[in-house]
Amino acid sequence: MHRTAAIVSQGDEIVIGQTLDTNSKWIAARLLDRGIVPVEHVSLPDDRAAIASTFIRLSERVDLILCSGGLGPTADDLTRFALCDAAGDTLVEDTDALAQINAWFAARGRAMNDLNKVQAQRPARAAFLPNEFGTAPGIRSRIGRCDVFCLPGPPRELVPMFVHLVAPFLQPDESRTVRVRVLHTIGLGESEIASRFRDAPGGDLMARDRSPLIGTTASNSVVSCRIRYEGPLSAHEADRLIARDESAIRALISEAIFGEDDDTLASVIVRTLRERFQTITTIESCTGGLVASQLTDIAGASEVFRTGWVTYANESKSREVGVPESLFKDSAASKAPGAVSPEVALAMAQGGLDAAQADYAIAITGIAGPSGGTPDKPVGTVYVALASRTHSPDVRRFAFIGDRSAIREWSARAALATLWLNLSDRQSVRLLRQV
Amino acid sequence: MHRTAAIVSQGDEIVIGQTLDTNSKWIAARLLDRGIVPVEHVSLPDDRAAIASTFIRLSERVDLILCSGGLGPTADDLTRFALCDAAGDTLVEDTDALAQINAWFAARGRAMNDLNKVQAQRPARAAFLPNEFGTAPGIRSRIGRCDVFCLPGPPRELVPMFVHLVAPFLQPDESRTVRVRVLHTIGLGESEIASRFRDAPGGDLMARDRSPLIGTTASNSVVSCRIRYEGPLSAHEADRLIARDESAIRALISEAIFGEDDDTLASVIVRTLRERFQTITTIESCTGGLVASQLTDIAGASEVFRTGWVTYANESKSREVGVPESLFKDSAASKAPGAVSPEVALAMAQGGLDAAQADYAIAITGIAGPSGGTPDKPVGTVYVALASRTHSPDVRRFAFIGDRSAIREWSARAALATLWLNLSDRQSVRLLRQV
Repeated sequence: MHRTAAIVSQGDEIVIGQTLDTNSKWIAARLLDRGIVPVEHVSLPDDRAAIASTFIRLSERVDLILCSGGLGPTADDLTRFALCDAAGDTLVEDTDALAQINAWFAARGRAMNDLNKVQAQRPARAAFLPNEFGTAPGIRSRIGRCDVFCLPGPPRELVPMFVHLVAPFLQPDESRTVRVRVLHTIGLGESEIASRFRDAPGGDLMARDRSPLIGTTASNSVVSCRIRYEGPLSAHEADRLIARDESAIRALISEAIFGEDDDTLASVIVRTLRERFQTITTIESCTGGLVASQLTDIAGASEVFRTGWVTYANESKSREVGVPESLFKDSAASKAPGAVSPEVALAMAQGGLDAAQADYAIAITGIAGPSGGTPDKPVGTVYVALASRTHSPDVRRFAFIGDRSAIREWSARAALATLWLNLSDRQSVRLLRQV
Repeated sequence: MHRTAAIVSQGDEIVIGQTLDTNSKWIAARLLDRGIVPVEHVSLPDDRAAIASTFIRLSERVDLILCSGGLGPTADDLTRFALCDAAGDTLVEDTDALAQINAWFAARGRAMNDLNKVQAQRPARAAFLPNEFGTAPGIRSRIGRCDVFCLPGPPRELVPMFVHLVAPFLQPDESRTVRVRVLHTIGLGESEIASRFRDAPGGDLMARDRSPLIGTTASNSVVSCRIRYEGPLSAHEADRLIARDESAIRALISEAIFGEDDDTLASVIVRTLRERFQTITTIESCTGGLVASQLTDIAGASEVFRTGWVTYANESKSREVGVPESLFKDSAASKAPGAVSPEVALAMAQGGLDAAQADYAIAITGIAGPSGGTPDKPVGTVYVALASRTHSPDVRRFAFIGDRSAIREWSARAALATLWLNLSDRQSVRLLRQV
């Protein structure tokens, strides 16, 4: 029975901060979907003793360990050895695994490197998990009463192996139910939301002894509210409780909610535009293609997104979407507003709307830094403009803080949020950091 | 003395896989820069007992704990309480912290929410760390002989607080030296690199008992080789050893190395083009702006990148960069190559090169999925074309595996790699997954 799980990621490169571990988050979400609660993530260096002792510690606390990485062909891949140490087992060569690795190389017209041979080794009492997309087989083992699955680190190998070789072996506790519902908001600060929840008519929604448990998370300008049930009720009863809390939350912060669960601003926008048979175009300066890439990351985006521009230079803004050059150049009579101005943002949006013959156009111009700031327009000054065939234009100024990447991320988020507010007829809602 | 460190991140949203923790990687790299070795990352749920027991466990093993998150105003923010439990301390209200939170709200013309008052509380023997960018002060404390720094989770608050309030307190062991050098490669598989290292003239470069220690990491199509020294030698002597190993590695895999340490393909490309006073434009279909956004994420990109297009629809490819419509439409005489073809990729690149008057143009067209695949051109089929004023065109076909986002990421990486190979006159090098 798997009630609780720990997730281990393996590799010097992760622990010293060279590589970002994205596997643990992915695995955690998949386990929770199946009613198994992740209670700890650990990242460890290529240190056989540290991996073995962590396996032992976690095996005494959880029902299931999922480990990624450390199964490669090189001398710093130590997971299989640590697993033996922790389980009191010895390494053997798995003939099926060896045949699979040989076949993998043969299919690519290459000879098997004898370093890859170690990848066919597994603890004697463990099972090998075939890997269709790489040379590192996974390992399924057991330490005491805890099931352990070790998968290779590359996500394109780990993901299909989890789906086909791990998921079918999972044994959630059928007598317990885990359900999570998430509502995503924009435009309200986390403490404003928390204070409305605390003063809710039915009592403090965020009390820690409450079931379902309600929590909030702020990421960039999005605050997500999580309703989570874990207990003996049936799935049906748990869903009823969650629906009740969802209604209570919606009543308190309805103006700010834009989506649920896996929704993102981009996915909600693409879905909404598809339903309305409408299209969007983007004209980006400081975000340099980030908004377009977030929209086109959504499957089905081709129905609503046909053209976008990255107009980084002034001459590109004029040539591609017809921004009047006079907006960049001072004349005898007056000072030009300059590239980072509401006038240019709006001209970009309206020019793009016409050129792409789209229903909506969103334009972003600003100063992402580190250089380029002035006293009037410091680094972080960003204008977002929305033009459309149906709404009056919406131009907003923002003052963001952070490094270049952070300002670009906030700008892209602000652009999508402005678009969403217009799509949902909430133009009057102010966004965080709007000035 | 801080020789080793553990990094803790805090929050249900991280442990259940709703939010990706990026703080731990960032903190780890900063610690290692200063010669303090991170030996474990842990992510924990909003569970006071789990946080307290982890603090105690780690405090017995490392000299320093850095914790992010759990300092917010809501009932699920429990770090300050757990810190008291672990350190055997009691909470007190810090008047300076309270004044700072008040001032933060006053500066924004808002009244302080009384939920924020809890944020002024800290363990009695701890110190408060002021936060200029948010309402959550940090806490500096001690458990046994281990120093503990707790910082708020939002990166725009955590980063400046680490720099100004944590870094000055760090006490690396001056008698030990930690040095890391990383070389990034493209075009060779990880096991090919490992096998060349093992058979190196001076003996196995990847032996685990060697100093410096050499390791490899594959991320997408980039394999990074890490040379790491940790020991009693002076910085100068350590640098000499690392330089010796770097030369050995360069001799073995010179054709594949594109950068060092914090370099990325995008940063190396922007730097190279800047040095040569040359420009690049992008014409993207399936990557939808990803390549442009990666290039423009590099400070100084405006000198080399002026215009880019996201030509997602066929009519956009024709209108914006002059791709002949005949390439999309079958004629009586012959079958058209279609949008995903070498002909269209090349026409996009050459049209963009002319329209942007750039020195290089890189075009990407492919099928990111989940739908749109055919037997001839399954999902994952991607063409990258490079056109330039000086080189002959370079068109490559790739067969990528994975979901939509993975295929887009691989495609963007392949486009940058193709550009880099041409910039460094290595057109003949094949890339991974090239078919």
